[in-house]
Amino acid sequence: MHDARDFRLELPASVVENAVAIALAEDLGSAGDITTDAIVPEDVRGRASIVFREAGVVAGLPLAEAAFRSLDPEAEFSVLAADGTPVSAGTAVAHIAATKRALLTAERTALNFVGRLSGIATLTARYVAAVAGTKARITCTRKTTPGIRALEKYAVRAGGGINHRFGLYDAVLVKDNHIAAAGGIANALEGLRTHVGHMVKVEVEVDTLAQLKEALSYPIDAVLLDNMDVATLHNAVALIGGRVLTEASGGVTLETVQEIAATGVDLISVGALTHSPKNLDSSLEWER
Amino acid sequence: MHDARDFRLELPASVVENAVAIALAEDLGSAGDITTDAIVPEDVRGRASIVFREAGVVAGLPLAEAAFRSLDPEAEFSVLAADGTPVSAGTAVAHIAATKRALLTAERTALNFVGRLSGIATLTARYVAAVAGTKARITCTRKTTPGIRALEKYAVRAGGGINHRFGLYDAVLVKDNHIAAAGGIANALEGLRTHVGHMVKVEVEVDTLAQLKEALSYPIDAVLLDNMDVATLHNAVALIGGRVLTEASGGVTLETVQEIAATGVDLISVGALTHSPKNLDSSLEWER
Amino acid sequence: MHDARDFRLELPASVVENAVAIALAEDLGSAGDITTDAIVPEDVRGRASIVFREAGVVAGLPLAEAAFRSLDPEAEFSVLAADGTPVSAGTAVAHIAATKRALLTAERTALNFVGRLSGIATLTARYVAAVAGTKARITCTRKTTPGIRALEKYAVRAGGGINHRFGLYDAVLVKDNHIAAAGGIANALEGLRTHVGHMVKVEVEVDTLAQLKEALSYPIDAVLLDNMDVATLHNAVALIGGRVLTEASGGVTLETVQEIAATGVDLISVGALTHSPKNLDSSLEWER
Amino acid sequence: MHDARDFRLELPASVVENAVAIALAEDLGSAGDITTDAIVPEDVRGRASIVFREAGVVAGLPLAEAAFRSLDPEAEFSVLAADGTPVSAGTAVAHIAATKRALLTAERTALNFVGRLSGIATLTARYVAAVAGTKARITCTRKTTPGIRALEKYAVRAGGGINHRFGLYDAVLVKDNHIAAAGGIANALEGLRTHVGHMVKVEVEVDTLAQLKEALSYPIDAVLLDNMDVATLHNAVALIGGRVLTEASGGVTLETVQEIAATGVDLISVGALTHSPKNLDSSLEWER
Amino acid sequence: MHDARDFRLELPASVVENAVAIALAEDLGSAGDITTDAIVPEDVRGRASIVFREAGVVAGLPLAEAAFRSLDPEAEFSVLAADGTPVSAGTAVAHIAATKRALLTAERTALNFVGRLSGIATLTARYVAAVAGTKARITCTRKTTPGIRALEKYAVRAGGGINHRFGLYDAVLVKDNHIAAAGGIANALEGLRTHVGHMVKVEVEVDTLAQLKEALSYPIDAVLLDNMDVATLHNAVALIGGRVLTEASGGVTLETVQEIAATGVDLISVGALTHSPKNLDSSLEWER
Amino acid sequence: MHDARDFRLELPASVVENAVAIALAEDLGSAGDITTDAIVPEDVRGRASIVFREAGVVAGLPLAEAAFRSLDPEAEFSVLAADGTPVSAGTAVAHIAATKRALLTAERTALNFVGRLSGIATLTARYVAAVAGTKARITCTRKTTPGIRALEKYAVRAGGGINHRFGLYDAVLVKDNHIAAAGGIANALEGLRTHVGHMVKVEVEVDTLAQLKEALSYPIDAVLLDNMDVATLHNAVALIGGRVLTEASGGVTLETVQEIAATGVDLISVGALTHSPKNLDSSLEWER
Repeated sequence: MHDARDFRLELPASVVENAVAIALAEDLGSAGDITTDAIVPEDVRGRASIVFREAGVVAGLPLAEAAFRSLDPEAEFSVLAADGTPVSAGTAVAHIAATKRALLTAERTALNFVGRLSGIATLTARYVAAVAGTKARITCTRKTTPGIRALEKYAVRAGGGINHRFGLYDAVLVKDNHIAAAGGIANALEGLRTHVGHMVKVEVEVDTLAQLKEALSYPIDAVLLDNMDVATLHNAVALIGGRVLTEASGGVTLETVQEIAATGVDLISVGALTHSPKNLDSSLEWER
Repeated sequence: MHDARDFRLELPASVVENAVAIALAEDLGSAGDITTDAIVPEDVRGRASIVFREAGVVAGLPLAEAAFRSLDPEAEFSVLAADGTPVSAGTAVAHIAATKRALLTAERTALNFVGRLSGIATLTARYVAAVAGTKARITCTRKTTPGIRALEKYAVRAGGGINHRFGLYDAVLVKDNHIAAAGGIANALEGLRTHVGHMVKVEVEVDTLAQLKEALSYPIDAVLLDNMDVATLHNAVALIGGRVLTEASGGVTLETVQEIAATGVDLISVGALTHSPKNLDSSLEWER
Repeated sequence: MHDARDFRLELPASVVENAVAIALAEDLGSAGDITTDAIVPEDVRGRASIVFREAGVVAGLPLAEAAFRSLDPEAEFSVLAADGTPVSAGTAVAHIAATKRALLTAERTALNFVGRLSGIATLTARYVAAVAGTKARITCTRKTTPGIRALEKYAVRAGGGINHRFGLYDAVLVKDNHIAAAGGIANALEGLRTHVGHMVKVEVEVDTLAQLKEALSYPIDAVLLDNMDVATLHNAVALIGGRVLTEASGGVTLETVQEIAATGVDLISVGALTHSPKNLDSSLEWER
Repeated sequence: MHDARDFRLELPASVVENAVAIALAEDLGSAGDITTDAIVPEDVRGRASIVFREAGVVAGLPLAEAAFRSLDPEAEFSVLAADGTPVSAGTAVAHIAATKRALLTAERTALNFVGRLSGIATLTARYVAAVAGTKARITCTRKTTPGIRALEKYAVRAGGGINHRFGLYDAVLVKDNHIAAAGGIANALEGLRTHVGHMVKVEVEVDTLAQLKEALSYPIDAVLLDNMDVATLHNAVALIGGRVLTEASGGVTLETVQEIAATGVDLISVGALTHSPKNLDSSLEWER
Repeated sequence: MHDARDFRLELPASVVENAVAIALAEDLGSAGDITTDAIVPEDVRGRASIVFREAGVVAGLPLAEAAFRSLDPEAEFSVLAADGTPVSAGTAVAHIAATKRALLTAERTALNFVGRLSGIATLTARYVAAVAGTKARITCTRKTTPGIRALEKYAVRAGGGINHRFGLYDAVLVKDNHIAAAGGIANALEGLRTHVGHMVKVEVEVDTLAQLKEALSYPIDAVLLDNMDVATLHNAVALIGGRVLTEASGGVTLETVQEIAATGVDLISVGALTHSPKNLDSSLEWER
Repeated sequence: MHDARDFRLELPASVVENAVAIALAEDLGSAGDITTDAIVPEDVRGRASIVFREAGVVAGLPLAEAAFRSLDPEAEFSVLAADGTPVSAGTAVAHIAATKRALLTAERTALNFVGRLSGIATLTARYVAAVAGTKARITCTRKTTPGIRALEKYAVRAGGGINHRFGLYDAVLVKDNHIAAAGGIANALEGLRTHVGHMVKVEVEVDTLAQLKEALSYPIDAVLLDNMDVATLHNAVALIGGRVLTEASGGVTLETVQEIAATGVDLISVGALTHSPKNLDSSLEWER
C-alpha cells in the first residue's frame, strides 16, 4: 500500500550521494578492498538480501542502494519494506543483484547506515507509540552524530517523529546562557523579533513558571519547558493556554514520556533518539 | 599523572580539523547562529567548563578544543583530564576561556564529539576491565558511524582497546562469503599471499574446527573464530597452539567476555563498542 | 558610535573564508598573478584605502579584509565605516597596510565583493527609506546570484532589510504550482502542518481574495499576496485582521513601494534587491 | 538555423556541473525542499517551459538543463532558442518534461542562472549593436561576480562580445600601480618579456600620450587607453599605427560607445557588462 | 588470455574518477579547450588508438578510459592489451570511438597517465625479470609523486611487483631516526607491539649485524637490511633463519639486483620504480 | 647573491598549501603516522637539514616548508639555498627546527617534492646551459604529472626555462589533428582569431615548409615546427623572417639541442623536462 505518508519521507539525493561517497572512501582508502580484489573474480554476479535480525522500523535503504550502485552501476536494488515500515525479526527488507565484488565491498557501508538509521527510527517509533492517544508529538534535538545530522533527522521522521530545528541557522532557541550573556530576559528578547527574519520561529527555554510568565510577555512562537516535573508542566500548559507551542524537554525516558504527554504539551523532545540509539541488528544474506 | 601511554594516543591534526569543520558547517549553515548573533554582543568574553555528569573515560577533547578555536582563534582551552583518563561524575575535564559567542555557538558541536567518543571509550574500558588478568585484548570492528570512523577507532584506544583494521584497504580478512564466492577455501587462500603486499596481515574467518584446520594449512597471520561457544574456543586455541593470532568474535557481551577471554584467545572483537555506545552525558557549565 | 545594531550584523567566518578562497582561486588559477610577480619585488609594503566613488551603504568589508589577509597574513585592515553605515561619495571606508603584492593581487577580488554587496545594501536602504513611517519591513527573495546567496542576504541586512527564507529547506512557501500539482488547496494544506517540523513557518501564496479566504482556514503563519493592486491589498489586510503575517510581492518598485506599505502589510519582498542591484563604484586608492 | 558560430560557444561540462551543484546545495541545504516534499507526490510528471518575459539574448540554458537533470536524471530538456539567440518577449526558449518535484525544486536555480546570464548577454548585444560598422570589438573585464566568472564570461560571448583575460594568470596587464610599485615604467617593462611565458600577451595601461610613447618602446602586444577623451583616443590610435592592439576603457556607456569605436580602437572594455547587468525577467510556465 | 592474475589487478573506481577529474580540471581551467572549441564542430565523431611507440608493460588504461568518458559519456573504449600486459613497440593497446572534441581534449590527459604508469610498470618488470629464479619479490617505497601514490603503487603491481606500505598509516617501519629519537632500540621496540593494532605488521631498519641481533629479540615481522653489501646480506639472511621477512634496500640497480636476490632475501625495495621511471612513449593515432 | 630574478620566481600560496595537504593526507590516511606516534614522545624538538646528495638546481623548498609547518606550526625553516640556485653535492639547502614528530612524519613528503622538482630544475638547467650563446629559450610542454602541473612548470622556471601554456585554456595551439578534424587548414584558421579573446596567442603546428607557408597567411603569433631536421629548421626560420615566434619541437635531446638552437629558433620545447626527469637525490640529515 502506497499511502499518503510515503511521499513525504524524502532525503535530498545529493545528501545521500555525499554521505555514501564519504563512507566508501573511508572504507576503501586508496588501495581498495584488497581481500575481495585478490580473491573474487571480476564481473561474477550474485544475489543477496538485507535481513533484519530483530524487529524494528526500517530506515536507510536509499543509502544502502547508493552504496551498492556506487560500486556497480548495474546493480538492481529492490525495496521490499520501505523506510518507515515496521517489520518483524527475520524480514528481508531489500534484495540486491550485483557483482559479487560490489556485494562484498559495499556490505559493511550499507549495513552501517541501515543499522544506525533503523535504530533511530525504531527508538523513535517506541516513543511515538508511548504517547499514542495524546496530542504530543515526539521530536529530536541537535544531539546528533557529527557529519550525518540530516540522515539522523530523516530517521526520526521515518520513525514517526518530527524534526526540531536542523541547526543554529533555521530557528531561534533562546537558552538560559543566552539570557545570562545578554544580561537578562528583557535584553535578550526585547527587539529580538526585529533582528531575525519574519519566517523564523522563536522559542525560549524556561525553567520556572516565573520565567515562563516573563517570556510570554514577548512575541514568541514556542516555549521549551526544561526539566519541569509533571505537576509544573500541567500548570505551565494551563498558564500558556494555547497561545504558543509547548515543548517538554529534559530527562525524558520511555517510562516517563506518557505522563509528560498527558500534561497536554504539544512536543516532547528526546535527545536519546539520536545520541544513544541501539544499532538495529541486520545482515546481508546471500543466495547461494 | 602523565604516563608513557599518553604520547601514544594521537589523532592526526588534519582529521581533527576536518571533522570539526564538517560538524560546524552542519550546525551553522549559511546563516550562522542566528540566536546568538541577535542577542549576544561581540567580543564579550566568558569562561566555562566541560563537566562529566556521569563517570566515564574521557575522549574527544582535541575536537572540542578545535571547535571553540575555530570560532575564536584566541580561545584558551585547558585540559584538566586528558583523553584516556577515567573520571568520576561531576568532574570538570576541560576549561575554556573564549568569547561568549564562541562558547554558545560551539557548545553543542563540542559536546556531541565528547559525548559520543567518551561513550565509546567508557564502554571499551568496561570490556578491558572485564578481561583483566587474561592476555586477551579488546578490539573494535568496522561497524562504525559513517564519516567518523577514525575518531571512533581513536576512542577505542582511549578506552584501552586496540584497533582492528581501519578499512578494507589495510589488512585482509577472508570471510565466509569470500570463500563461497571464490568456490572454496583452497581457491580463496591458494596464492593469496602473493597477491597482497608483504606488510599486509591475513586473517581468515572460520566457524568450525574443520574449517580452522584447513585454514591453518595456508600461510596466514590470524584466525577469526566466529560465533563459537566457549568449549569450541578452548579446543580451537589448543589446536592453533600459538601459531597464529586468535580472535574471538560474535555476540560478545559484558556478561560473556570474561569466560571467552579465559579460553586463551589473543583478541576479542566487539562491534557494540562503536555501533551502540551510550552517549556519555556531559555539559558546558558557565562561570558566572 | 557602536550601537546596538552592530553586533547583530554577522556573517559566519567559514562563509567568508570559503567565498574568498573561491574568488581568489578563480582569479589566480595555478600560475598566480603573473604581472605582479614579474614586476613587483617581494616584501615591499604599501598602504591604500578603499574609497567609495558614489554615496551608498557599506557592505562586504569582512570579505575585503579576508582577501588581503589571505595573501599577506600580516596585512592590517582598519575599518573606517563598518558594514551597514551610509557614506557619501569620496569616503574612505577602510585602510589597508600590506605588501604591495598583496594589495595589487587582491584588489579586484576585494572590490568585486564590496561593489556588489554595497550595491545591494544601498538599494535595500532606498526601499527601507521609502517605507519609513509605516510598519512594513523590506525583505529579499531567493532570486540571488548562484553561489553567494548568504553574502547577498547579509547585504540586505546591512541595508536595513530583513531576510526571507534562505532556501527551500528552512521555511514552507506554498505557491500556485504546488497547489496545482497537489490537486487543489485542500490537498496541499490539509495535514501539511503535521509533515513539517514545528519550528518551521508556513506561508501560502494567494492571488485573489477568494484564495485568501480559503488559505486562512488552514493553520498557516503568513500569506504572500501576489501581484495584487493596492485596493485589493487593502481589502486583504482588512480581511486577515492580523491573524497571520502579510507579505506583498510582485513588481514592487521604488515608485510603488510606499503606497503598498500604506496598505498595512507587514512585509514587502523585492526581488530586484539581489537580482539587479547596480554595482557600487569603489576603488583602491594608494598612498604614494 | 544552426550556423557556424554555434559550435564555438562552449562551456566546460565540469564547470556547468560544479556551478549547478553549488547552487542546488545552497538552495536545498540538508533538509531539501520541504514544501514540495510535503505536498507533491513522487514520480508524477509534468511539463513546463522557460519563457522570456522581455526581449533579450538567451544565455544559461545548459545550466538550467543541468539543474533539472540533477534532480531527475530522466528529465527531457528541449532547447527551443539556443544560447546566443536574440528572442522577443513571450518566447519560450526551452521545454522541460520532468517529475513535478524536479520542476518545482529546480525552478529558481534554473531561472537564477538564465536570468543573470541572459541579462549579461543582452546588455553585451546592445553594446555590440551600438558599434556595428566599426572594427571595434566589445570585451569584458575582471569585474565579475565572485565564483561564477567563467559563466559570466561565457554570457559575454553569447552576446557577441569577446573575452578579456580570465584572471591574473593568463595574460599580463601592467597598470599604473604596478608601474608605481616598480619605480617607473622602465623598471616595470625592462626585461618583463623574458619573465613571462612566450604564449602570454602583455598589455600596458596608459593615461596620456606621453606614457603611450614610452610604453611603445617596449615589446608589448596591446595598450589599454584609460579614461581618454575621444580626441585623445584619435591621436593615440594614429600614434600607434596598428603596431599593437588598442583597447579603450573607462566610463564607457551605451551613449558614448559609438564615438569611442569611431576612433578606430580595436577593443572597448565595459565593466558594466558583468558588474551591473539587469536580470532578464523569465519564468517557468507550466502546461496544465 | 584472461588469466588468474587479471582479476587481482584493481584500482578503486573512485580513485580513478578523482584522479581524472583533477587532471582534466588542471588542463581545462574555467575556459576549457579554447582551440578545439573554436575549430572543431560539436558532435562529429572519430576513432583513434593509443599506440605504444616503444616496448613496455601496459598500465593506466582505466584512467585513459575515464578521461575520454568524462568528456563524452557515449565514448566507446576497447582494451586491446590490458594493464599488466607486456607489448612490443608499435602495439595499439586501446581503441576509442568518441566525439572528435573529446578525442582532442582528453588526449594529453590520457597519455600523461598511460605514459607515467606504463613507465613504472615497465621498469618494475625489468627488475622482476632480473630476479627470476630467486624467491625475491620486487617492492616499491613511499618515494612516489605527491597526489598519485595509489596510481603509482598500482603500476608497480601491473609490472609484477608487490606493494610496500601505502603510507605511514598501514604498517610500522622503525627507522634509525625513530630509534635515535626514542633514545635507543629498547625504548623504541619495548612495548611497541602493544601500541599498534594486532593486524599491523612491524618492520625494523638495521644497518649492521649487531643491530639486527638486537632487533630480533623483539616481536617483529620483518627487517629492512639497509645499504648492506652482499656478503653482509648473506650473513644477515643466515642469522635470521626465516624467522622474519627480510627486505634488502638502498642503492639497488638493475645491475646489482640479481646478486642481492641471490642472498636469499624475501624482498628487494627499489625507490627508483616510482621516483625516476622513464615515461613510456605513447601516442594517440587517429583513423582517417 | 639575491638578484633580480629571485622575486620573479613565485608560486601561489594556495597552490602550495593545497599540494601539501593532498600529499600529507595521502601519507597519513586516517590513522596517522603510527610508527612515530607509538615511539616518539610529543613535544620533543629536534633539528635537521635537507642535504643534496648530488649536484643540481634547487626547487621545491616552499613545499617542504609547508609540509613541516603543517605538522608543527612552530617549525622554523631557514632557506640556505633558495629555489633556482645551483648547488654542489653535499650542500645543505635548508635547515629545520621542529618537533621530532614533525621531522619524522613530514620527511618523506618534503623530500618527494624537493626530489622531483629539483630533478626538473636540474634537467632544465642542463638544456639552458646547452643553448647558451644562442637566443633560444627552453620551454616545457603539457606532458606533466597529473595533479602537480603548476609545481612542475614552476620547477622549469627555477631551472631557467620558461613556460609554454599552462593548459588548454590559456593559449591556442592548432595541431595536425585539429586541422584534420576541421577539414583543412583554411577551415581551421579562417576566422579563428575572432573566436578567441584578443589576449590569447595563437600557435600553429606545421610539419613541412608548405604547411608553414600556408599557416603564415593567417594572423597567428607563433609556429611550432614539429620534428623537422636541422636543415629544414634553418629554411623555416629564414622563411618566417621574424614575423612570428618560432618553436622547435620533437625528439629534442641534450645532444641535439645546441644545433637546433643554432638554427635561430626562438623556443625549443622539451617534453622530457617534466615527463622523465631523474629524481634529485636528497635526504634529511639530523643533528644529533
